[in-house]
Amino acid sequence: MAKSKKIFTNTLRLLALAATVVAIVFMVTSHESAQVLNLTFTAKYSNTPAFKYLVIGEAIAGGYTVISILLSFKGLFWRLIVILDMVTTVLLTSSISAAVAIAQVGKKGNTHAGWLPICGQVPDFCDNVTIALIAGFAAAIIYSVLLLCSLYVVLSPIFVAIP
Amino acid sequence: MAKSKKIFTNTLRLLALAATVVAIVFMVTSHESAQVLNLTFTAKYSNTPAFKYLVIGEAIAGGYTVISILLSFKGLFWRLIVILDMVTTVLLTSSISAAVAIAQVGKKGNTHAGWLPICGQVPDFCDNVTIALIAGFAAAIIYSVLLLCSLYVVLSPIFVAIP
Repeated sequence: MAKSKKIFTNTLRLLALAATVVAIVFMVTSHESAQVLNLTFTAKYSNTPAFKYLVIGEAIAGGYTVISILLSFKGLFWRLIVILDMVTTVLLTSSISAAVAIAQVGKKGNTHAGWLPICGQVPDFCDNVTIALIAGFAAAIIYSVLLLCSLYVVLSPIFVAIP
Repeated sequence: MAKSKKIFTNTLRLLALAATVVAIVFMVTSHESAQVLNLTFTAKYSNTPAFKYLVIGEAIAGGYTVISILLSFKGLFWRLIVILDMVTTVLLTSSISAAVAIAQVGKKGNTHAGWLPICGQVPDFCDNVTIALIAGFAAAIIYSVLLLCSLYVVLSPIFVAIP
């Protein structure tokens, strides 16, 4: 039972790791130049703080995921892992939310603020960012499931002693 | 010990409730009109999806906080409360991150995307939004502390039975 649980959680961690890698690769490689009114402008992730935050968040989460898989074979530190899983879930949720908010402006614009959509000019950039956002969203969902599983085990009715 | 813990967590919950109420009030009441090139434009929270998401997130978190304080007196449902605290923490983090990302563009603009800052035209709107963001950030921090406290209790060394 404990072994099948470990296989299950480590499979989820590997999926989360894959998702973070895909998010980083597609975000970092997304740049495209376009000409508007004879001016060339280049769209790239590093021009937008929220996209940089996403890359940093995914990198930290990916790095932690590798460490957590290695630690899980030791069987120690499981309490620490529950806490760090929580921190990672919050970090992933925060970074994907900020990135989606900015991407939504890039896609739809905000006429009230006078911000025009840019996806018409740089469609390939937007496609890459969309894939990165989907992968980042998947990573956040997988970590939420992992955390709920950990909490479920920790909170299972065997441990009813807490008032 | 259990009683002092309950007083401590309920104090944190009351603080979180106050923070969510402040965030909602300042965000909802923030609107300002400005004239730019003989055109009048009105800045209000409902023009920005991320700000609407913040208000909805804070409202759900505030409502849940009231329910969780009432339930805490029953002493039942503590397992459910740990799970719901986690969901609330993630919701608050997500909504504040999206709102901060958009507010940063409102404050600084993004020259690469051609999005101009708007805080010069509507400073009062920006001040109100800033207060709402600080309050929303405080609510997210308080809920993170609450969740860490719950996890600390649940994971305390008395319950070492899990491998």
